[in-house]
Amino acid sequence: MAFPQVEAFRGGENLIRVVGHRGARGVLPENSMIGFDFSLSIDVPLLEFDVVLTADDVPVITHNHRLHAPTFRDTTGRFLAGEEPKVSSLTVEQIQQFDIGRLDGQSAYGRRFPDQAQLDGIRVPTLMNLLELVESPKYGNACLMLELKSDPDLAHDASHRQKFVKCVLQELRAKSMSSRAVLHSFDWNLLEECQHQAPDMPSSYLTQLPDNSDDVGEDSSKAVCPDFRGRRDEIPVLVKEAGGSLWCPYFADVTAENVALAKELGLCVAVWTVNEHDDICRMIELGVDAIVSDYPGRVQRHLSDLGIRWRTAH
Amino acid sequence: MAFPQVEAFRGGENLIRVVGHRGARGVLPENSMIGFDFSLSIDVPLLEFDVVLTADDVPVITHNHRLHAPTFRDTTGRFLAGEEPKVSSLTVEQIQQFDIGRLDGQSAYGRRFPDQAQLDGIRVPTLMNLLELVESPKYGNACLMLELKSDPDLAHDASHRQKFVKCVLQELRAKSMSSRAVLHSFDWNLLEECQHQAPDMPSSYLTQLPDNSDDVGEDSSKAVCPDFRGRRDEIPVLVKEAGGSLWCPYFADVTAENVALAKELGLCVAVWTVNEHDDICRMIELGVDAIVSDYPGRVQRHLSDLGIRWRTAH
Repeated sequence: MAFPQVEAFRGGENLIRVVGHRGARGVLPENSMIGFDFSLSIDVPLLEFDVVLTADDVPVITHNHRLHAPTFRDTTGRFLAGEEPKVSSLTVEQIQQFDIGRLDGQSAYGRRFPDQAQLDGIRVPTLMNLLELVESPKYGNACLMLELKSDPDLAHDASHRQKFVKCVLQELRAKSMSSRAVLHSFDWNLLEECQHQAPDMPSSYLTQLPDNSDDVGEDSSKAVCPDFRGRRDEIPVLVKEAGGSLWCPYFADVTAENVALAKELGLCVAVWTVNEHDDICRMIELGVDAIVSDYPGRVQRHLSDLGIRWRTAH
Repeated sequence: MAFPQVEAFRGGENLIRVVGHRGARGVLPENSMIGFDFSLSIDVPLLEFDVVLTADDVPVITHNHRLHAPTFRDTTGRFLAGEEPKVSSLTVEQIQQFDIGRLDGQSAYGRRFPDQAQLDGIRVPTLMNLLELVESPKYGNACLMLELKSDPDLAHDASHRQKFVKCVLQELRAKSMSSRAVLHSFDWNLLEECQHQAPDMPSSYLTQLPDNSDDVGEDSSKAVCPDFRGRRDEIPVLVKEAGGSLWCPYFADVTAENVALAKELGLCVAVWTVNEHDDICRMIELGVDAIVSDYPGRVQRHLSDLGIRWRTAH
């Protein structure tokens, strides 16, 4: 089955795609409407973002299962302290009381993004907010890399998975976005459920080797996936067998061999999260299809200098 | 005379202003509408930019008197080569044939902005384009730091100065922006002409000590100003005597002494162009009123971490 949205992520002769990570986390608050709008406005129509379900079953765009203390401020303007409440225990209305416009510079996480604009009054968007934005004709070329975050507490609850996927698909279909989104996850069970409920949509497999899991300060949702230890160059085969259309490895895990193998298998290779100049250069040399970055402008600079395009017609 | 727009640039107790330099040159093409829109959208309503007059007497927003080769591409997509044509020899229509959306990575200038988004189809804006943007109610708090670039070839031509100032003022008045702009220049003769034609508007004096003129790759317009050698800590007195409301020194030229003196004289001190973390920290410690930066988000990060505001009410 050929999926038009997979082709939107595929590179080619003199062509490497740029994907805005959580909007453009290096420039603007992550997973915010203003961040998505920024990426779209700089000719980066491919958006990666994270979806979690609220207590009232609303898909909202936020990375962690718990409100992330270094980015959530309460109504008094203070960053959260103590145990972080779970997204699934709060209604969308309760979640939108918090302001996600700034980073706590006292935290290790906050210090990672020294150029991020600091704003006030920024709210966790719902998935629907974003779908309404990309529905606008000027963003008709936008495609969504929609990461479904599987709740580690519910990893073995099939009924929760079913409900989560159903709620997300309902919204995508309501806005006729199923041909403009890829369903993306670390959780292979969840992607199996996606393929079951939405055979008309492509799956995107996120992977990270345990040896290279140095992405600090983030509650990566529990990975329900094969044991990759010692199998670095076989991962594309496993992804293909599982029914994947895209393979999204952590950038440190890719090699000339596994990129070539993935391409042979027809997989589109989108690497994350590539922020440092040297890493961007290495990914360009390896000829990946797409580069997911917190600094999409930085990736464009490298591509532009090399005369490489990031869309089919410039 | 109290000018409301000068107060918009003035800091205070726990308050330092952020000014977007040429929009936000570190993030987006300089002196572009998308750059201005970005600054405004991240709660940086103070915009610094450069105005030059075309052959058909239209004030356009561009830094140099000549089309700047590392940022101007012709209709074939190539960066300019050979002698750069003068803005004053071209009509606005001719100038807008060029695309200013990218940087030439082969040039020293281009390499200075490794994170700048690379776009296509970006045109030199007219001053009127920007006035129309900030006329929108959502940007009602925007104030303009409008730098008049004096043509080195015409430094001694008083009639050219008169015409230039007249054309700029005409547009500001047509859009009722004279209470939202400061007239800003390195050229003291030009600022004298501004005071003559617009006594209702404040003047902003840009200065740079010859010892610290290391801002590479830029055609800084000829500075028609007193000889500052050996007079670093007297400059505020000279600015005040010339009728200035703002003093805008190169950041490397400021000291605790001259900042204190400027403040005593009632001048508002806006330092440029402060991009490096250490320099931002030093300017914050010195307690300047405003920081002009290519990376306004970076300045916000520092201020936010220190609990310092950049507008009167947060």
